[in-house]
Amino acid sequence: MKKILFFLLFSVLSFAQIQKVEPAFWWHGMKNPELQILVYGKNISTYPIELSDHIKIKEVTKTENPNYVFITVNTDEIKNSSFKINFKKGKKTVDSYTYELKNRKPGSAERNSFSSKDVMYLIMPDRFANGDPSNDSQPNLIEKANRSLPSGRHGGDLRGIINHLDYLQNLGVTALWLTPANEDNEKQTSYHGYAQTDLYKIDGRYGTNAEYLELSRELQKRGMMLIQDYVTNHWGISHWLIQDLPTKDWIHQFKDGEGKYGFKRSNYRTTSQFDTNVAQIDKDIALNGWFDTTMPDLNQKNPLVLKYLTQNAIWWIEYAELGGLRVDTYPYNDKTAMAKWAKAITDEYPKFNIVGEAWMYNPAHVSFWQKDSRIAEIENYNSNLPSVMDFTLFSDLPSALKEEDGWDKGMIKIYNSFGNDFLYPDINNILVFFENHDTERFNEIFKGDIRYYKMALTLMSTVRGIPQIYYGSEIGMRGDKNNGGDAEIRKDFPGGWKGDSQNAFNAKTQTPEQKEFHGFTQKLLNWRKGKDVIHSGKTKHYMPIDKVYVYFRYNDHEKVMVIINNNEKEQNLNLSRFAESLDGISKGKEVLSEKEIPVDSQNKLTVPPKSTLILELK
Amino acid sequence: MKKILFFLLFSVLSFAQIQKVEPAFWWHGMKNPELQILVYGKNISTYPIELSDHIKIKEVTKTENPNYVFITVNTDEIKNSSFKINFKKGKKTVDSYTYELKNRKPGSAERNSFSSKDVMYLIMPDRFANGDPSNDSQPNLIEKANRSLPSGRHGGDLRGIINHLDYLQNLGVTALWLTPANEDNEKQTSYHGYAQTDLYKIDGRYGTNAEYLELSRELQKRGMMLIQDYVTNHWGISHWLIQDLPTKDWIHQFKDGEGKYGFKRSNYRTTSQFDTNVAQIDKDIALNGWFDTTMPDLNQKNPLVLKYLTQNAIWWIEYAELGGLRVDTYPYNDKTAMAKWAKAITDEYPKFNIVGEAWMYNPAHVSFWQKDSRIAEIENYNSNLPSVMDFTLFSDLPSALKEEDGWDKGMIKIYNSFGNDFLYPDINNILVFFENHDTERFNEIFKGDIRYYKMALTLMSTVRGIPQIYYGSEIGMRGDKNNGGDAEIRKDFPGGWKGDSQNAFNAKTQTPEQKEFHGFTQKLLNWRKGKDVIHSGKTKHYMPIDKVYVYFRYNDHEKVMVIINNNEKEQNLNLSRFAESLDGISKGKEVLSEKEIPVDSQNKLTVPPKSTLILELK
Repeated sequence: MKKILFFLLFSVLSFAQIQKVEPAFWWHGMKNPELQILVYGKNISTYPIELSDHIKIKEVTKTENPNYVFITVNTDEIKNSSFKINFKKGKKTVDSYTYELKNRKPGSAERNSFSSKDVMYLIMPDRFANGDPSNDSQPNLIEKANRSLPSGRHGGDLRGIINHLDYLQNLGVTALWLTPANEDNEKQTSYHGYAQTDLYKIDGRYGTNAEYLELSRELQKRGMMLIQDYVTNHWGISHWLIQDLPTKDWIHQFKDGEGKYGFKRSNYRTTSQFDTNVAQIDKDIALNGWFDTTMPDLNQKNPLVLKYLTQNAIWWIEYAELGGLRVDTYPYNDKTAMAKWAKAITDEYPKFNIVGEAWMYNPAHVSFWQKDSRIAEIENYNSNLPSVMDFTLFSDLPSALKEEDGWDKGMIKIYNSFGNDFLYPDINNILVFFENHDTERFNEIFKGDIRYYKMALTLMSTVRGIPQIYYGSEIGMRGDKNNGGDAEIRKDFPGGWKGDSQNAFNAKTQTPEQKEFHGFTQKLLNWRKGKDVIHSGKTKHYMPIDKVYVYFRYNDHEKVMVIINNNEKEQNLNLSRFAESLDGISKGKEVLSEKEIPVDSQNKLTVPPKSTLILELK
Repeated sequence: MKKILFFLLFSVLSFAQIQKVEPAFWWHGMKNPELQILVYGKNISTYPIELSDHIKIKEVTKTENPNYVFITVNTDEIKNSSFKINFKKGKKTVDSYTYELKNRKPGSAERNSFSSKDVMYLIMPDRFANGDPSNDSQPNLIEKANRSLPSGRHGGDLRGIINHLDYLQNLGVTALWLTPANEDNEKQTSYHGYAQTDLYKIDGRYGTNAEYLELSRELQKRGMMLIQDYVTNHWGISHWLIQDLPTKDWIHQFKDGEGKYGFKRSNYRTTSQFDTNVAQIDKDIALNGWFDTTMPDLNQKNPLVLKYLTQNAIWWIEYAELGGLRVDTYPYNDKTAMAKWAKAITDEYPKFNIVGEAWMYNPAHVSFWQKDSRIAEIENYNSNLPSVMDFTLFSDLPSALKEEDGWDKGMIKIYNSFGNDFLYPDINNILVFFENHDTERFNEIFKGDIRYYKMALTLMSTVRGIPQIYYGSEIGMRGDKNNGGDAEIRKDFPGGWKGDSQNAFNAKTQTPEQKEFHGFTQKLLNWRKGKDVIHSGKTKHYMPIDKVYVYFRYNDHEKVMVIINNNEKEQNLNLSRFAESLDGISKGKEVLSEKEIPVDSQNKLTVPPKSTLILELK
């Protein structure tokens, strides 16, 4: 017995123990054949490595932490579907990992991605629907389900989303953006998922990697797609790799008053990214400071980190057949590294779309982050990021609809916002939205007054760009972030949980109010699906007068007139002012009522108070 | 007697009567030898034209109005100092004009112009000093002097300015910008001069063309220069040429409800200049609508108009030995025509500076108007306009100093403003100012609290660009535009009129308060004169903390540290934060007190409440 014990102990101490291999597998036939495999294990770097089948190792990278080794291979030189990575001691293999190279799905590289043809629907998986109560708590995951805690885990999951895909399809959305679904094993408030602790694993409380792929395939069956929320800026502090850093500079660490290295909060001033007068110390704190105490800031300048983030993103795209990425806190990252990251992904998938969260209000600043930006070109920068979010419009819309009109107040704000379209290199590829999981709910701002929702959704659905809506708004969900924090804007979707007192997924059990919100949304989004003129037409807009904003979307074949009357009074619109857009037009079919009315520059048009008209012109 | 009367009558009816020739003379040796001479007279275009000395006419342009003829000659082909323009009837010359071609002042083409080395001082000539009471009213000019009317003519004139050049020189300003001094013969409120009625003649109430030249030369003797306020967008409705339009489209005219053509007010939305979604009707009203009822909007697209404006500007530059132009309401003009205008001028005078009033708050929009703007390049536009005004900083400064600090409030606004410097193609050539003749007086906003004036003037005098100040602020002048209109901000300078109860031009008769304003201004501006590091150094700025904004100006030889403490409390500034700017520095000489104090990154520095420190570092 003693002998056996001694032998076991000896094994542990002397033999390599592979604890993690990332990525766990890869694919044959990628455009970039180079693959860097991270192997983690106690003193793993002290063991010589040999690959089976005489496969050459391109490079072995070791760091100051002996528990890591990074093995680079050329997958084009590997013909079999798997090979072994052997860790040696003398001639003896002390541990081994069978590395699989799968075959890619046909057409994978040329896949389509989200575009202005789509409408994106944002879900927080914990808060949408609980399809599998059995996974709500997990032995290996610290935070257990507790629906009574506003910021706790509520049990929503992938199965819940899969169960409601028909609902979503009928609603007219075509792309699902989920906030991060990877494991976030922090002690509390882990439901938001932005402090990820395993980059290769769906959080067990949401389901499995297989279920994630199932969700993606179910979406594809319906002509829809899955968009992953990708976080390059930070991981959770409990991430195994953060707990045993491969290199000290894997994350940014700041010296505190006592000489210890670690946390410092970002000053969040990401304008330092282009400020030519910036002091380095301010820029360092902006970009390298942590987004929050539980979110160590990744150093994308470290080539190992960048490679990890790049391969991980590609791994998910390939594995889960993703239709796009949304990137969190985009300008907090090292911008040069991020340009390489985006390029690597779009080199692999040339039509792939990635939208970055560059939360800035000046359109010149937002434009900076879009691929081929002429603003960024001033500083010889090109992000390679195809899409950005229209935070200008988002920011201006509520006050535009609330305020009385003035020189720079009221409806003119919306007009001015679109007046800056020229600053964007690809105006059709920007995300338009009036809320998301970080902002006050639009229906809360307007106290559930559906007239404002209708005006806002009409705008989002008919202007250039990709509309994005947030779960629950289509049934008028509210919640006041200013008086209750994030939990208020991330409430559970009614009917997503067994035993919920009300089910808003089902038209039969929706309240009349929910039905009105839902019906309007459904009608509008489904109409939008087939409209090339909305997806890619040009825009001509007219200066708001008397709180009425009018614009046209047009191409060679179609023309749509949109009227947003934010006036409390019915407006009798003299159409002569729009003559240049009404040449040859005699009538219009109103999209919501489907009624046909005469429309030409000799007419007047009556628009009810606080309402919209969308007219397909003929 | 009857016979004689008949003969006289016959002469008037049959013979050409030259009433105006513009320009009245020109110069030999201009880079562009082409000269277009406008001749005005009853039916003048019906007479054949012949030049003396067999000089060839390049082109004769006639319009629908027979009272105009435009004669284009090549001055390089004319060797004499004058030639005759003869209007013929048969072989008989019925009228003749002797056209003079003067010799240019040596070095005229290569003259220097205002730059960041200068401080610009803005004067409204009617309101500064009355040096010649005999010219206050003129028989041929409608509005007579009446100092009791806030918006009347007060009698200020060029002689008054000439009389106070020593005062200005001692103050430390180096360039004088006068609001338009040309004849403005409108019935009322003509003192502002922006409704000009003769583009070639100084308003008789200000003096003569000769006195204008005298002012310019007196300035030059002092190392100073004269900057003309040029208005390309509109003339006064009483301009003789507007009263008898050469072409209907010399100005923009709009059809009113009764079918008549004429006035329509601009919507003032000049963002239509770059809005790619703009409706033509809105853009037309913005650019072609009139700035005011008395200001018909010139059509710069008409080549005759553009030529007139170009030659007129060059005529003044050459005649009055100008050191620069300031252009009024810049973005209201046709931008393609204006690019030609600016190019023609800077082709003649390659170092000549022109600053355009592009009153917009988004730096991306302001930048659009500066020569070689990368923003304008997006729309394949280049204004050729060397300089623009920093309306962003102007707009943000008062609230920045007033507000409590917040994410986007308080001192961060100033920081953010400079954070956009990268958007400008030539950041040193932008005008920085905290007020002008159209804005609330800074000292009014802060109720005469000199501490704010000191902070603002310190900022203007030490940041990149060309500081511009407004007459009277250096003695703390106030006046509330919001409660009294423009007249409130355009009061007479005390002591400029004989018999004024107080004379603020003279240190001996300044009030203690005036003396403090004046002394501070004088000290600071005179210090600035020799400081290359301020004129052309780089900037490094630090994010404001506790309402303290710190920045450095530096070049290879010099370094200046500026601290603006907008806190009501004294601040003990830990200098370690500025280590990257204090490398090798041990002390600093404070510019105003001239005291030397230790400055290095190990120190602390005490800054009194609501005050500034300007330190020349060593």
